[in-house]
Amino acid sequence: MDSHAQAFDEIWAVIGDRLSTRQADRDLHGQSETWHRAPPPDAVAWPETTSEVSAILAICNRHRCPVIGWGTGTSLEGHALATQGGLVLDMMRMNRVIEVRPEDRLAVVQPGVTREALNTDLRATGLFFPIDPGANASLGGMAATRASGTMAVRYGTMRDAVLALEVVLADGRVIRTGTRAAKSSAGYDLTALMVGSEGTLGIITELTLRLHGQPEDVAAAVCAFRTLDEAVACVAMTMQIGIPMARIEFLDSLAMRAVNQHAGSDHPEQPHLMVEFNGAPATVRSDAEAFGEIAEECGGQGFRWATSPEDRKRLWEARHASYWATLKLRPGATGVVTDVCVPMSELPAAVAAAARDIAEAGIVGTIVGHVGDGNFHCLLLIDPQDADELARAKAVATEMSRRALRVGGTVSGEHGIGLGKRGLMQEQHGEGWAVMAALKQALDPNGILNPGKLVPDPA
Amino acid sequence: MDSHAQAFDEIWAVIGDRLSTRQADRDLHGQSETWHRAPPPDAVAWPETTSEVSAILAICNRHRCPVIGWGTGTSLEGHALATQGGLVLDMMRMNRVIEVRPEDRLAVVQPGVTREALNTDLRATGLFFPIDPGANASLGGMAATRASGTMAVRYGTMRDAVLALEVVLADGRVIRTGTRAAKSSAGYDLTALMVGSEGTLGIITELTLRLHGQPEDVAAAVCAFRTLDEAVACVAMTMQIGIPMARIEFLDSLAMRAVNQHAGSDHPEQPHLMVEFNGAPATVRSDAEAFGEIAEECGGQGFRWATSPEDRKRLWEARHASYWATLKLRPGATGVVTDVCVPMSELPAAVAAAARDIAEAGIVGTIVGHVGDGNFHCLLLIDPQDADELARAKAVATEMSRRALRVGGTVSGEHGIGLGKRGLMQEQHGEGWAVMAALKQALDPNGILNPGKLVPDPA
Repeated sequence: MDSHAQAFDEIWAVIGDRLSTRQADRDLHGQSETWHRAPPPDAVAWPETTSEVSAILAICNRHRCPVIGWGTGTSLEGHALATQGGLVLDMMRMNRVIEVRPEDRLAVVQPGVTREALNTDLRATGLFFPIDPGANASLGGMAATRASGTMAVRYGTMRDAVLALEVVLADGRVIRTGTRAAKSSAGYDLTALMVGSEGTLGIITELTLRLHGQPEDVAAAVCAFRTLDEAVACVAMTMQIGIPMARIEFLDSLAMRAVNQHAGSDHPEQPHLMVEFNGAPATVRSDAEAFGEIAEECGGQGFRWATSPEDRKRLWEARHASYWATLKLRPGATGVVTDVCVPMSELPAAVAAAARDIAEAGIVGTIVGHVGDGNFHCLLLIDPQDADELARAKAVATEMSRRALRVGGTVSGEHGIGLGKRGLMQEQHGEGWAVMAALKQALDPNGILNPGKLVPDPA
Repeated sequence: MDSHAQAFDEIWAVIGDRLSTRQADRDLHGQSETWHRAPPPDAVAWPETTSEVSAILAICNRHRCPVIGWGTGTSLEGHALATQGGLVLDMMRMNRVIEVRPEDRLAVVQPGVTREALNTDLRATGLFFPIDPGANASLGGMAATRASGTMAVRYGTMRDAVLALEVVLADGRVIRTGTRAAKSSAGYDLTALMVGSEGTLGIITELTLRLHGQPEDVAAAVCAFRTLDEAVACVAMTMQIGIPMARIEFLDSLAMRAVNQHAGSDHPEQPHLMVEFNGAPATVRSDAEAFGEIAEECGGQGFRWATSPEDRKRLWEARHASYWATLKLRPGATGVVTDVCVPMSELPAAVAAAARDIAEAGIVGTIVGHVGDGNFHCLLLIDPQDADELARAKAVATEMSRRALRVGGTVSGEHGIGLGKRGLMQEQHGEGWAVMAALKQALDPNGILNPGKLVPDPA
């Protein structure tokens, strides 16, 4: 803390007691959802305007004080841990929906608006925002990690959802990237560069987001399979035939047990697909029929339809809560969570191999996934005191990533790199990782923005 | 030429007589589709492999010799003109479709494959590649300019179509960006940074492209309107209601005359929309009906359906040829072509203002556009000898861009910046343009890649 006392004095002059060095505030902003651990930051600031963010960054840049953006604190790879100390910038007071333009299908929001808050705001417009990671995350954080969720198979990820950004750079300069037009060929895609940069290139202070029309009709269902292989084969066939799924989620037997316990449901403890169809009523009907035929062919054992909006809400809330539900299977356990994404043809083998590895490692863990785009997750339950168990879980996660790389996939489909996967960046990107370092150096020469993450350490 | 003789000697040692300094070759690679003019390059090279491209760039970087990538030479803003001399790298001998993976809906191609050649290759797979600028451009060039076309309203642009790239950097290093997975959260989006960088950050030597399933059913039609305002209002209503158009193209009266003359058709010389619906038969029917009701409400005067595949092919070929058809309206004329993209709610006013400006400037010109995403084009026919007419045409184009900026749009939806719009980059991006310069400096410190384009001149 002492090392940045001068910076904090200057920041105090800008935002007063919205800067805190109290232990409780620091501890709250030094937590992680998963097994990643680091000492708390030296201080926490709650800016309320872009110009405050700009002033704070200019000060920190002068004093070489690390700055780490913070939203809801729900990232899964330790992205927002202050591993090199410094200041956490809690963006949750910048939580206004600035503008909704239904006629242009876009909304302008501050970074502290959560995805659920935005959708509540949109209810009367006939529009919605489809990106839905498990947590009710902040939209700024979701952009920073290039989040996606259950509907990415239909609507894309934050890469597709973000039209424009306001970003404060390391030296306090404020830039606006992108426009309100649907497309642009006017220079480097700075929006795409910032999305997924995990707070290492700038702090997002405003987002312009693409919205979608609420579908005329929706049908959702769960379908059980005898084996994991059959369920995943059904997904690959469905996507290869081109049925326009709104959602197609895989949950293994253990994840279904967790869901049952959490939601009080009585689904058989077998591998399941949870699916949703959107569109005009005739489309929904024909898509659902086409999927039903494939599912039957793959050994799917009947559907349970969630017909009412309340039933559907319950279904998807159960899916979104599966992370926390699974943690409860082993009280006191911590999660080693990992996600990879592979080409569709490689999905069945990749999921089967992950399941085998978990079993062989003697670890309790679930596999779930947004399998329609080849993305799946493992949640491995470990005793945080048991170093050997942690090592075995990490080995399973690492092998899952390496297998994804061997078949042309990526070490993360949506959780991001943070601390957990930085060791795999060189393997995935080769010389491209050095290019990322050069870009980082160009925009943040003092290395104050979320240091120790995503890019190699400065030479 | 002399100034780079040493570089050319070294390149000759690598590729022999696939390097040329003959006047005819230089002239062929110093042309532009539009009014932009520059002296020819000093030499032309036809590499056949990535390692040749790498060797050539390393040589040019050592000798500070400019390198300009070249595809089909069909860009509209002078992107590939060697305004500072140097070497044009003609990529058209790297024209192999390397791999098609129907089960993963992707194709891997070299940059010299054209969009039509790829689709010919895909015919038996049930898949197609939807991005269709007017010209039968090379896929490398289309990525470099972030091209789109008539189907972007449904399938997105090259930003969405490119999954992964192989790129040779200024110093000859070869990087691979992206993966074969549908999404990734593993670091900076180098793919998106390269797409649309217009040859200023690297030379694309391989592309992995997302493919789409050929729709089960297709219906296309033309519909006439009494006024431009009515036609454009119909587009805005259609998109705001959310009818999933596969194509919705606007052509003004004069463009329809050109199309008639070119295609031997007899459409009334009135503003038209050309539309297409894709999907399951029931969907196509209901979408077409919903659109028909809106069109009627807006004063649309009946449809002419193109029912057979041949009729549809003719219809869209006529649309794609409208640029060259329009040029023929005034023999000897050169085109000043411009495109902007605006939010949907601003489209009617923006198109109406452009039409007014063209009329007031006393210029013969057409307005056409991929209006479903707010993107429209003017083709202004000028006598290349008439400096005053050129100045008036450029003034119309500039005002069109500035109007787009005032309403939250962009100075180019798909043609790119090249020479024509570099003067507007500061207005559009502000401090963001300096950020682009910093990125360029980081990846191409000697400024050899397409110098004088896209980013500010080095200080």
